[in-house]
Amino acid sequence: MANDATMEKLVSLCKRRGFVFQSSEIYGGLSSAWDYGPLGVELKKNIQNVWWKEMTQTRDNIVGLDAAILMHPRVWEASGHVENFSDPLVDCKGCKNRFREDQLPEENRVSRRCPDCGGELTEARQFNLMFRTHMGPVADEGSQVYLRPETAQGIFVNFKNVLQSSRVKIPFGIAQTGKAFRNEIVTKNFIFRTCEFEQMEMQFFINPSEDTRWFNYWREQRWNYYLNKLGIRPDRLRWHQHGPDELAHYAKDAYDIEFLFPFGWSELEGIHNRTDFDLRRHGEYSGKPITYLDEETKEHYIPYVIETSSGLTRTVLMVLADAYEEQNLGKAEDGTSDLRTVLHLHPRLAPVTVGIFPLVKKDGLPEIAREIEASLREDWTTYYDQGGAIGRRYRRQDEIGTPYGITVDYETKENRTVTLRDRDTMEQKRVKIEDLAETLRRNIAEFHRQ
Amino acid sequence: MANDATMEKLVSLCKRRGFVFQSSEIYGGLSSAWDYGPLGVELKKNIQNVWWKEMTQTRDNIVGLDAAILMHPRVWEASGHVENFSDPLVDCKGCKNRFREDQLPEENRVSRRCPDCGGELTEARQFNLMFRTHMGPVADEGSQVYLRPETAQGIFVNFKNVLQSSRVKIPFGIAQTGKAFRNEIVTKNFIFRTCEFEQMEMQFFINPSEDTRWFNYWREQRWNYYLNKLGIRPDRLRWHQHGPDELAHYAKDAYDIEFLFPFGWSELEGIHNRTDFDLRRHGEYSGKPITYLDEETKEHYIPYVIETSSGLTRTVLMVLADAYEEQNLGKAEDGTSDLRTVLHLHPRLAPVTVGIFPLVKKDGLPEIAREIEASLREDWTTYYDQGGAIGRRYRRQDEIGTPYGITVDYETKENRTVTLRDRDTMEQKRVKIEDLAETLRRNIAEFHRQ
Repeated sequence: MANDATMEKLVSLCKRRGFVFQSSEIYGGLSSAWDYGPLGVELKKNIQNVWWKEMTQTRDNIVGLDAAILMHPRVWEASGHVENFSDPLVDCKGCKNRFREDQLPEENRVSRRCPDCGGELTEARQFNLMFRTHMGPVADEGSQVYLRPETAQGIFVNFKNVLQSSRVKIPFGIAQTGKAFRNEIVTKNFIFRTCEFEQMEMQFFINPSEDTRWFNYWREQRWNYYLNKLGIRPDRLRWHQHGPDELAHYAKDAYDIEFLFPFGWSELEGIHNRTDFDLRRHGEYSGKPITYLDEETKEHYIPYVIETSSGLTRTVLMVLADAYEEQNLGKAEDGTSDLRTVLHLHPRLAPVTVGIFPLVKKDGLPEIAREIEASLREDWTTYYDQGGAIGRRYRRQDEIGTPYGITVDYETKENRTVTLRDRDTMEQKRVKIEDLAETLRRNIAEFHRQ
Repeated sequence: MANDATMEKLVSLCKRRGFVFQSSEIYGGLSSAWDYGPLGVELKKNIQNVWWKEMTQTRDNIVGLDAAILMHPRVWEASGHVENFSDPLVDCKGCKNRFREDQLPEENRVSRRCPDCGGELTEARQFNLMFRTHMGPVADEGSQVYLRPETAQGIFVNFKNVLQSSRVKIPFGIAQTGKAFRNEIVTKNFIFRTCEFEQMEMQFFINPSEDTRWFNYWREQRWNYYLNKLGIRPDRLRWHQHGPDELAHYAKDAYDIEFLFPFGWSELEGIHNRTDFDLRRHGEYSGKPITYLDEETKEHYIPYVIETSSGLTRTVLMVLADAYEEQNLGKAEDGTSDLRTVLHLHPRLAPVTVGIFPLVKKDGLPEIAREIEASLREDWTTYYDQGGAIGRRYRRQDEIGTPYGITVDYETKENRTVTLRDRDTMEQKRVKIEDLAETLRRNIAEFHRQ
């Protein structure tokens, strides 16, 4: 299968079919903020649910958490964000364009000339990426708070609360999904890098002596997740190990899982050995040391942390890019090429699980189709469509990745069977109405990426 | 059943068992922000899922949306929030306490004396409740943006995008859940009124001539939802119609559903006739009028909007308060009173659906219990517990609202049956292991509040 997805095609499909709209578009748009439309919100929810189930529900030793976006400002002093979380910013005195100095081409960094217009660049100044706001009516220093730039700290400051309330023992993890905010100087690539984004991350607390074992365990788990749970094609995934100059200040070792986006290989998820940096610092800054007592060995230590941190909104883009295909099916009846655009989404992720079509709008077929829909939508997302030629209705669903189509025709009235169409093979089989739910359940469980 | 819940008991249970923690507690806490712990996050997700399924998945004419928190600042000029969304703030010159003037007792408003210390109060000044921040590195007027104070506007500015991408026709609705922020002067009552909160709301677009009919329809639908889907006791719910002095600037008619919280009757959800106020204003402010063409009648109009807007975090508090009971079960074996605390949560909402207990920690019982857990946790949230007397294990689950308990005992080894215990009746029945999933499914579907 060719990689047919370009960013232009994806952005266009997303807007046209209601996956993603630019935020506040009627007011000219807000740069780098995006709204998820009727299909996008279902896709996003499905990704989140698959991740949550994989990381918490089906495991013994991971619990969930949902911390607030607004946190005490001391959190960000302890974490190092107030001091370190900044980018070097330069402006062009000519065209007024703005750049991150560390992302300028070498020659422009040396010449201090703008890559766009050749104008002179200002000196770099450090710009902290945290959004600031004030709680309470008086905008003084004391009331200043930040929008969290990462979700992880909400887990670290709650480590003791979870320990005391949940009867967990090391090794155990805390998982969380939620929004974070970074005042990025340069945002780009649609929903890939945005000021407002969503993370899905899990912090796994371990005995420091076991960090290598658990680091490798989580690398393997997370790699397999993309292949088996999301159905991503293996040739579009790769590992990138952080070199000494890339490692974050808290990290001992770090690997990213990268995906081959239309704009190149880019980070999707980081698996990081954060050591005891965060718990140690919060212990120091709060004046209440955070340690763990192993009841069996009587060992007392500050746990190490293995982090798996992925971007939810990035995953949406990856899933769409990986699923997108344009197929030439040969000649159509009128002699032109028969083209279809199809999203090969995993059925667990598809915004609509099953389309339901009466062959014609009369003779009682719509009524039967509606009955079938009512019986299926307790468990799945359905879409009823009775408008236009049946072939066009199939194509509309192919384009948004609906894996199954049910068509009610005249034979249905005779023997209570319908056709069940497969999005990827386009094959149709007759199935008894009473067997539909079970057939769908089995097909979804046994789905393999073509 | 007596109303046993006091705020003190609920806050204590929430912290002790891991439903809700104060945000940044190790740094002394951030006022009015709360983190949801391992049980709280599951309860919150379950409420959200039940609402989403009720409002979108099982309906023909409602689609979802998920708009960004950061929006173009013009949105809040059009909506009236920049001009109108403020409270009158007064300070005490003596004790420095701060009050909303409109919430002061009549005598203090007249005497201009502090209700706490008798000191003199300042003149009232209007304080806008929107949190402000800046996008981009320069904190000038042009870059100022707000954290959205309500989710609704994300729907209104996307009305045309949804119309063009989703083949919907009036009457239809757009549903959304998400965070909103209000810089409340006075926050109180635990998670009831907080600066950071979550909404679940649906905007239903209609022909203006049909507003009374749809207003009544949605009042009925939403009332029944609380009784039938969340299992709330009817005597703790009531209607409150907004009087002329309570109506928001955009509203023609408005009813609140109120719940009898431990601190009194308070708003849970508003069903409002917002007229065409929002779409009209966004048309005016964006310079692109927003109208709808009815293809059948050829009528051209600005749709009216019936809104159903509820608080997710408030619903969490309601559900806990409504479910809480302290029962005296008579004399225990040692002669003391046998007390249990139980949450009568609907099984769809309970953070843990089923507890799984080997009677003893040996003789192969734990292995069978683990097998059962593995077979159930694809579909439900499970909790395995092998520690302590079986009665204490049941009570631990009663206190967090786990509706079902499965106990593996010696008889299990003989005939592959287990006991299935009901949280509310405390009755136990023997069930074949192979029938457990089906039995649970039926019990959940047929659940009725005791």
